[in-house]
Amino acid sequence: MERQHFEEALQALKSRLLSMAALVEERVHRAIRGLIERRAELAQGVAAGDEEVNELQIEIDDRCLKLLALQNPMAGDLRLVTAAMKINADIERIGDQAVNIAEYALKLIRLPLLKPLIDIPRMAEMAERMTRDSLDAFVRKDAVLARNVLARDDEVDELKDQLFRELLTYMMADPGTIERALALILVSRSLERIADHATNIAEDTIFIVEAKDVRHHHEETPPAGSSA
Amino acid sequence: MERQHFEEALQALKSRLLSMAALVEERVHRAIRGLIERRAELAQGVAAGDEEVNELQIEIDDRCLKLLALQNPMAGDLRLVTAAMKINADIERIGDQAVNIAEYALKLIRLPLLKPLIDIPRMAEMAERMTRDSLDAFVRKDAVLARNVLARDDEVDELKDQLFRELLTYMMADPGTIERALALILVSRSLERIADHATNIAEDTIFIVEAKDVRHHHEETPPAGSSA
Repeated sequence: MERQHFEEALQALKSRLLSMAALVEERVHRAIRGLIERRAELAQGVAAGDEEVNELQIEIDDRCLKLLALQNPMAGDLRLVTAAMKINADIERIGDQAVNIAEYALKLIRLPLLKPLIDIPRMAEMAERMTRDSLDAFVRKDAVLARNVLARDDEVDELKDQLFRELLTYMMADPGTIERALALILVSRSLERIADHATNIAEDTIFIVEAKDVRHHHEETPPAGSSA
Repeated sequence: MERQHFEEALQALKSRLLSMAALVEERVHRAIRGLIERRAELAQGVAAGDEEVNELQIEIDDRCLKLLALQNPMAGDLRLVTAAMKINADIERIGDQAVNIAEYALKLIRLPLLKPLIDIPRMAEMAERMTRDSLDAFVRKDAVLARNVLARDDEVDELKDQLFRELLTYMMADPGTIERALALILVSRSLERIADHATNIAEDTIFIVEAKDVRHHHEETPPAGSSA
């Protein structure tokens, strides 16, 4: 194949990855809405299975293998195709977390409301935005946006710890809240894992753009606005 | 490079992956022993960081990229090298779980023993064996052993659910146990995640050997011994 063919195949690959990501994002959002609005039918739809996501994952992996075999890409192109395989796996695992959240939601909807949900919607919004931005960064090869995603991972962790401490207080004060508090803690862990996957995607993006592996060097990034 | 060169590079790649896996397995084992034997110094050593694992991950990814660029492998060889990149990521994430377990262990060691640990050591043994077997299966291209690993994932999940129910009873009966029970629940989630990574490695192995994607088709595997 010619260079033009290769570019077309790459575009098609990116476009399929984005379709899969859109599907998964929509499923996460629906699971969270089911939880917040206490609408079992929304959560039920997500918990029922993610066939379509799984099929897309296999198709995308296959596209990547074909590109590697037939085009023998080099340098940036090679990094892009292998990163696409990793990003594919991360998106699929975000989809797994949507299923988990939907299952906890179904459990929680059957029980009386423990407390108005404030931190969970915030965490969900952050995790969803990180996912969206990490994929935008990948498609646009935008290392600045990717670094911005990395910087947000700590905020999600802080929110998770804060929620954990608050729910612990509830449980200590009234054992009748334990089951619900536990389910909410596990929802927050799922959101944390979604944010982790977005972080992986952002790291892969930086690697594509800069040929620089930032996976284990967050601490070396100077803080924004540092002048020392 | 010649075919012989390629074979040598593949052997070196496998050998580095195994070194990394051995390191990570040892860290999981040490974190669990720290927890069971209540030896803070063991857990401390694991919680302190996994620099070496991280460096190996970057080195192995680099080997894979070089093999892909310089050798343009086809068919089974291509599947092997791309699977090695995914397995590399799974091993690194097992290492992350070792750190998590070590942190929960440090927390638990500071508090009085909640109950003799029975299910956690069993779960840990299962998850560790699954990890070891999935890597053996990968190195020996043994699809039978890989399928055997897949079959064990449900047992780990059952043990996790059983432990969850038991710890819930403790928490309900005595709020003074909540903090410790929660930490044990989170340890069991980490072990479940290790088993999930072993499952990923086993699936990748089957894909290498049979060029068949089994990731989302566990349910289609006939049960062992079925004759119908």
